[in-house]
Amino acid sequence: MLKPPYVLFVGDARDQLAAKTAVGVQYWRPQMCIGQIRLDGCRASLELPVMTIADACAAGARTLIVGLANAGGTISESWLPTLTEALGAGLHLASGLHQRLTDIPSLCAAAAASGCSLIDVRHPRQAFAVGTGARRSGRRLLTVGTDCSVGKMYTALAIERELHKRGIAADFRATGQTGIFIAGDGVSVDAVVADFISGAVEELAPANAPDHWDVIEGQGSLFHPSFAGVSLGLLHGAQAEVLVMCHEPTRTHMRGLPHQPMPALNDCIAANEAAARLTQPDARCIGVAVNTSGLTAAAAADTLERLADASGLPCVDPVAGSVAPLVERLLA
Amino acid sequence: MLKPPYVLFVGDARDQLAAKTAVGVQYWRPQMCIGQIRLDGCRASLELPVMTIADACAAGARTLIVGLANAGGTISESWLPTLTEALGAGLHLASGLHQRLTDIPSLCAAAAASGCSLIDVRHPRQAFAVGTGARRSGRRLLTVGTDCSVGKMYTALAIERELHKRGIAADFRATGQTGIFIAGDGVSVDAVVADFISGAVEELAPANAPDHWDVIEGQGSLFHPSFAGVSLGLLHGAQAEVLVMCHEPTRTHMRGLPHQPMPALNDCIAANEAAARLTQPDARCIGVAVNTSGLTAAAAADTLERLADASGLPCVDPVAGSVAPLVERLLA
Repeated sequence: MLKPPYVLFVGDARDQLAAKTAVGVQYWRPQMCIGQIRLDGCRASLELPVMTIADACAAGARTLIVGLANAGGTISESWLPTLTEALGAGLHLASGLHQRLTDIPSLCAAAAASGCSLIDVRHPRQAFAVGTGARRSGRRLLTVGTDCSVGKMYTALAIERELHKRGIAADFRATGQTGIFIAGDGVSVDAVVADFISGAVEELAPANAPDHWDVIEGQGSLFHPSFAGVSLGLLHGAQAEVLVMCHEPTRTHMRGLPHQPMPALNDCIAANEAAARLTQPDARCIGVAVNTSGLTAAAAADTLERLADASGLPCVDPVAGSVAPLVERLLA
Repeated sequence: MLKPPYVLFVGDARDQLAAKTAVGVQYWRPQMCIGQIRLDGCRASLELPVMTIADACAAGARTLIVGLANAGGTISESWLPTLTEALGAGLHLASGLHQRLTDIPSLCAAAAASGCSLIDVRHPRQAFAVGTGARRSGRRLLTVGTDCSVGKMYTALAIERELHKRGIAADFRATGQTGIFIAGDGVSVDAVVADFISGAVEELAPANAPDHWDVIEGQGSLFHPSFAGVSLGLLHGAQAEVLVMCHEPTRTHMRGLPHQPMPALNDCIAANEAAARLTQPDARCIGVAVNTSGLTAAAAADTLERLADASGLPCVDPVAGSVAPLVERLLA
């Protein structure tokens, strides 16, 4: 669906978090990213050459990715001159924001004039069938979470990389916008019509060779009152025999909801295993991926040890540490 | 949203099941239905006078409801002359089918010419906010199910009627197309974008007076691999203190999925209570509504007794029997 190499547009991002889509793509697919395009006042920093549109085209870029993730998911007026210039120079335009590129007449006109595509990855472009839960071949792993934004995508990508390092056939399957830019394809499951959540995931991670692993990016949490329906449909559609629980140990409440307590780790593991077994009776959680970026090194080590004791499972930080213990367990 | 009284269009329905939308509206809101319109070959029967469009208008009808529910949810070419005539005569047109009335150019033209509305109740007309799970006032009951199509709408409507009979303020809240025709409003939750399932239900059944009951129509089942995401989002958004489990005792597998076994009744009750407590810690199942229409009277009585013994809860048939035991329990 997406044509690399990419040039990443970080616009006037006011901090690193506002450019988290670009940061994720550059971190996981540096070989697909040839540069960044910035506007005045940008405070995000990527480890990529700063370019103009002309530079990017000369360097071989084929697609400009809108790498910002703002609240509301809107396309800022201040970005339009650059985006229009990119289309005029022959670059495809891709965005994962809620507001569609195709809803902006000036971009539609520029795309039509140049023959370039406007790709809104958050919005499904196809109709899905209703899920069936019928057993399919191939091996599948799903990252699940105690909460939203705890590292489910990073964990899945780290596991895919570790499997590849060991020569094992594996594909990361993206279910959110940043993941789709990284994989080049995927389905933003939270934007699918509710009746088709599990069906969309059955199509995203279809039957495969018996020893092939699909490593599926989870979304939300069964314990998040806003999004648990998405998480459950994804769990049923994934039909994963292996679950990895992702956790951020400094959270004091569910993301965005100060009134909503975090679940206990073991309760969350048990609930995910029980729900997953509806479509995959062998489903089991094989480990915990802990985002320790908010902790000192000493506190991180203590936390990993404490959580491993409590859960009886390997606990690792997939970014600061290694997912090798998880991969060894899933291959055992 | 819908303007009664209605005339029900049953077209060329080949059997009673093909007209189940009309059958449900006529059964629950006979006072809102003034007649039926049939085409040659119709084999469904409603207890309503057969009318022409002119008859219906003369009798005061304001809206024609497309009362058929076919596989695929399409609008048949053979219905279009009647639907166009209805618009020309000043009737609004309402449909719960998947295919939209507004996607048919000849109907759009006729509606524009007459100033009448085309109302596609299956498709949400508004944007919803993401759910929060924040506690809200008012009392709420949700019908849940061991499977799809086991009587969740009929049970909710029977409970609303029984509450009204006792002088208690209560509103049926519709979450599917037939329910929306009956209530005159509602949200078809399976057609909402996945991120907004619980938010749509929070809006459908908002904060209310402390002694007011919202009786919310459930959808699907936590144990149905196709639709469990919808059921869980609905459960979290409903924030219901009272659940009623609906069950069809002759099913040998989950509807439409021969490979998928039915859950045990008690497991299904426990899973629904556990999930509901995320947003409503007091949630409890107070009884079981059993659709015994497929059983002899003797077998029905045995089944109700057996299920009551197994669950320790009152078990009733909400149509052949009475939901009074359930309502007494929820008021206790």
